[in-house]
Order: sequence, then C-alpha cells, then structure tokens
Amino acid sequence: MAEMLGKASIRFSEPVYILNSASVVGTKEGQGPLGLLFDRVGKDDMFGCECWEDAESKLQKEAVETALAKTHLGAEQIRYLFAGDLLGQSMASSFGLGVFRIPHFGVYGACSTCGESLSLGAMTIEGGFADRVLCVTSSHFASAEKEFRFPLDYGSQRPLSATWTVTGSGAFVLGNEDARRAYQKDEESVTDPSNRRARAKITGVTTGVMVDYGMKDSMNMGACMAPAAASAIRQHMEDFQTVPEDYDKIITGDLGKVGKQILITMLREQGIDISANHMDCGIEIYDADTQDTHSGGSGCGCSAVTLSAYILKQLEEHNWRKVLFLPTGALLSKTSFNEGKSVPGIAHALVLESL
Amino acid sequence: MAEMLGKASIRFSEPVYILNSASVVGTKEGQGPLGLLFDRVGKDDMFGCECWEDAESKLQKEAVETALAKTHLGAEQIRYLFAGDLLGQSMASSFGLGVFRIPHFGVYGACSTCGESLSLGAMTIEGGFADRVLCVTSSHFASAEKEFRFPLDYGSQRPLSATWTVTGSGAFVLGNEDARRAYQKDEESVTDPSNRRARAKITGVTTGVMVDYGMKDSMNMGACMAPAAASAIRQHMEDFQTVPEDYDKIITGDLGKVGKQILITMLREQGIDISANHMDCGIEIYDADTQDTHSGGSGCGCSAVTLSAYILKQLEEHNWRKVLFLPTGALLSKTSFNEGKSVPGIAHALVLESL
Repeated sequence: MAEMLGKASIRFSEPVYILNSASVVGTKEGQGPLGLLFDRVGKDDMFGCECWEDAESKLQKEAVETALAKTHLGAEQIRYLFAGDLLGQSMASSFGLGVFRIPHFGVYGACSTCGESLSLGAMTIEGGFADRVLCVTSSHFASAEKEFRFPLDYGSQRPLSATWTVTGSGAFVLGNEDARRAYQKDEESVTDPSNRRARAKITGVTTGVMVDYGMKDSMNMGACMAPAAASAIRQHMEDFQTVPEDYDKIITGDLGKVGKQILITMLREQGIDISANHMDCGIEIYDADTQDTHSGGSGCGCSAVTLSAYILKQLEEHNWRKVLFLPTGALLSKTSFNEGKSVPGIAHALVLESL
Repeated sequence: MAEMLGKASIRFSEPVYILNSASVVGTKEGQGPLGLLFDRVGKDDMFGCECWEDAESKLQKEAVETALAKTHLGAEQIRYLFAGDLLGQSMASSFGLGVFRIPHFGVYGACSTCGESLSLGAMTIEGGFADRVLCVTSSHFASAEKEFRFPLDYGSQRPLSATWTVTGSGAFVLGNEDARRAYQKDEESVTDPSNRRARAKITGVTTGVMVDYGMKDSMNMGACMAPAAASAIRQHMEDFQTVPEDYDKIITGDLGKVGKQILITMLREQGIDISANHMDCGIEIYDADTQDTHSGGSGCGCSAVTLSAYILKQLEEHNWRKVLFLPTGALLSKTSFNEGKSVPGIAHALVLESL
C-alpha cells in the first residue's frame, strides 16, 4: 500500500517502472543540443500532414508506436492511456490516439501535462488497477502559436522573456514488477542481455496546486509558472522531509532562463537553495544563442522529450541516481488572455530513480 | 485490492462512497422538470460576473463550496481535486478552483468528464492514495456556444437533432470507509440522525475507448456519441458478466432523443436490449416540448447535475438499487470542426449502488 505523505505527496511502496519510452521531435529540436538523442526527428514539421493540428496528432501517434515497438508490446497489452496536449479540447490526442483503442483518460495541465499523466499513470499501477499504462503528451510550435498567439505569417516580434514551443511528443510505458520481469525476459531473447531493461523507476509523486501571482504576460510564462514550481518543490521537500542535496538534479519543465532565476530566488527566500542542482528542460533543449529561442523551450512536449531522450539516459547510465522531475504549466487560453486574465501556474513533481 | 475485470473494468473491493454532492444550475435548468431538486438556481446566467467564462468558473466554485458545506469539510481536508470543463484549456476550472488550494488533476473527456473525474477519483481512494477527493465538472450554455458555434446574437437556427448545453456544475465529495464513518458521526451531531449519510457507493468502473464512426455533424452530437456509449456498455457487460436487467437504470449523459434511438438500436443488433431501463440525463433535464431544447440537454454539467440532484436521490430513497451511470462525450473543437474533421465519442461508466 502506498504511503500518503504530508499534504500532497505519495511514496510508492512498490516502485513503478518506466519500461521504455520514445521521443519524436521536429526539425528545430533535431538541430538542438539534444538532437542526436531523440528517437525520431521529422524531415519537416508537417510530418506528412496537411495542417498543424494533424501534424501534432501524428507526433503523438508515432511516439506511442515507437514506445510500443521498443517494449515489444501490442496496444491491447496496455490497460490505460493517459494523454493530453495544449490544443483546445485536447485535439492532438483526440485524433492521434483513437486507432489504438486503449481505454482513455484525457488529462490537462498545460505544459505540466507530462507530470500529471505520469503521476496518474504511476498511481494507477501502484493501486493495482493496471499492469501497464501508457502516458503521452505533445506540443507543436505552429499549432500552439495558432492556438494562443498570432498567425505565423505576421512574423510577430517576441520579447526576450518569450519561450519557443517545442515540436515534439514523448510517450512512456509504465509497468509494475510483473510487467518489468516479462519485459526483461523478452528483451533477453532479442537483444544484448547486458542492456539495461526498464529505464528508471518512479518512487513518489507530489501533486501541485494552482498558484496565481496575478502575472498577465503570456510572453513571460516562466515568470507565471515559477511560483507554482516553487510551491511544488517546497511542498515536496516538506512532505518527503528532504533537502535539495538529496537529488542529483531538480528538473523543471519549461521555466526558461527568466523563470529559472525567479524560481531560484523565490526558493532561496524560503531557505531552500536549489541553485547548485537545478536544471530546466526548456534551457537544455535549444541553444538559445544560435537558435533564436530567447528564454528557452516550452510546451507539453518540452519536458516529455527531454525526459525520454536525456534525463532517463542519465539515470540509466548512473550519472544521476535520483532526480526530482517537475513539469510546469501555464494555465491560460486565448480567451482568458483576451479577457485580461492572469496566468495561473501549476507543477507536478515525480521522484525518478535509477535501477 | 481492486480486481481488474476483462479489458477495461475494475471491481472495487472496498466501496468508494459519494459522501455528498452539490448541483448549481442556470435559470433554464431551474425551470425544467428537475428544477426543484437542484441545490442552487442562479437568478440569471451571469452569476454576478461580467463574462460567460467567469460565470462558468463561478458555477464550479459555488458547487465546490456547497459540496464542502454539505459534508462539513474544509478544503484542506480534501486530498485531490479532479476537475474539467468544455472550454479551451479547461478555463472554467483554472479560474474557479485555484482559491481552494487543493492538489489538482485537470481532466478532459468532453461531456464525459463527469464520468472520467469520478472514475479517477474513486480509483485514487480505492488505491489508498486519498481518504477524500472532490470531483467537479461544469458547462455553460453561453460559454459553450461561444467556444464551439456562433455568437448568440446571430440567433442561428438549430436543427432538431441539436442539443442545448446545460448551464450547471456538479461537485461530488468521495470518501473511503473511514471518511464515511467520520462524516456520519459528524452528521449525527448536527442533523436528524435518521437522515441517510453517504449518498451512494461506487462499486466499479469501466473506462471507455475513443470511438469514431466518421460522423461530422456537430449539430447531431447524439449520433456522434452513441457508438461510444454502445461500446462502453457492451464492454462493461462483458467485463462484469452482467445483463441489462441487473441494473435498475442504465443512464447515459447527453445522447438526447436522437442519440438514444441510435444507442438502443446499435445494442439491440449486438443482442443487448436496454430499451426497458435506459434513461438519458439530457432528455430528463428539460421539457423539450415547452423549453425549445430539441433533442435534449448536453454538456459536462448535464450528467453532473442530474446525478447530484436526481439519480443519487433515487438511490438514497431505494427507488433504485443499482444503476450504470455513463456520461458521454463528443471530442470536437471549433478548429477540428472547421478543418472538416469527424467527431469521435467517448463514454466512461460507473456502477452506482444504494447503501
């Protein structure tokens, strides 16, 4: 039985395994610092489709197909699918994933959706409701600009605090101990048995609350989300009774350079210093100097593909033993923005450990 | 430990209780056949706000406040909040619920969201991750028309297959056995102890898959959703090894009159006859003859407020002992509609039993 900790956390008694995962990205991400690590890089950002929304659906579909192929599983062996994206009514998921016919839970947490889907997926396994689940999220630069901002043809200028929405989708197959054993056995028959099998384990989660500091600048989402990230990290450390040094890395989703500074400052004022081991997926995924991405990358896909391609690799290679992975979300819509609303933030944390 | 049944179902070993619930609706719903049963009916559909989206946020906030008041609980006693609505990026939830500061899982299943939130909420309790959770969903006629269709001022004509989006929000406090005992003890001290305490129990769930028959008519959502409802009912009966007669009612969310006929016909072709005990919340909530609502009501709020005000009352009064409650969702957005896409459906089923 899992253990409820403090106000918002769970420590799993049985670890939930990330059996394998997949990352599919667009051209710009393929040219970035992590480019060689992604499973698939599109030739162009249309992915053979006729509109951006379809391209994003295709991203999700390819990520799921790749994750299933890497785990040697058929869709019918997956008990639940947790999926979401940034588009209105989660359209990328609705049109990308129906073909798999997996019982479906749609989730929405803006760019924190990767954390939300992995949290619920892991809880579903730990609770004995599933042996294997699949969690997938995506974003697409062009469908997001269309959804939230201006037509690309306008060539609107972007302030230095703006982030660039990642074109990418990450899919993760989670499994319980039995699923891990079955996967390992299968892996031994087809590949080098010295390969590591499951990629990492999820040992705990902290679920975020919505935090609204009244920020209204959708071109500075790092500032809008930093208070939520600070809240979730503080709550996590209070619930688990840990300190920053207990983690090799504390990894936020897409605060970017501006949000990173705010987060570190906010937490320092509360006596928590994460400056030595903080990392942000949005900063890692692009080379801001040469790729014109200003504060960094963002979008559901940002933390998802960085987790699959880079973070899990570090855990597999034992460069890191334990990290806090914390996708961050800015809860805005074009309607709320046009009505002059603030941008509340949310962040969901997972403890990921190497095997 | 819960029992996984068949492809998509769970039978709970410990029942999850619906401790109490609340329904807040607009004027038209207040004038309908169920009008006297709702907890709160707005004086007008603005609920004191300046725009429709804010009004919908207010609906959710009032539903949660009322549900907390009826269970004599503070927000800090709720472990998780599962919430969603129809607006792009779930804006009603993002701006209505932040004040409660409850760890938040945003969910999206179109009008099936009530079923999805209750399923995940019940699983969270059964899995030992929470003692109490809150599930809330909403819709608002005017914010939905703005989101999906045309400005109200156009006075667009509506075909007879069209449904009318319910202005309403339903909130449900779920609890485990300990939470039920604490609630009952508390109730005894403040009210007539002969009052029934928890309203009903959730004993099982069946999670739907996305089903797309290629229907493209967003003015006939009943037809778009009926195949998903048929799929979920068939899967449920296969997984639980039950027949329609095992349920006093089989209750869909918002198929309306058109969708109801399609559902009954489709299931009859598969050897399942639900004609004697089928009920649809969308048909119950309005008097179509006098309220000009054509095929019936729809929206996340439709099944949610009907469950809270009417269905749970029948279970409390033992008019019904066991029902299958099955909110139905049409997965469309204005973008997908304008791009000529079909409207996939989804439905999530819960087994509700009287105490």
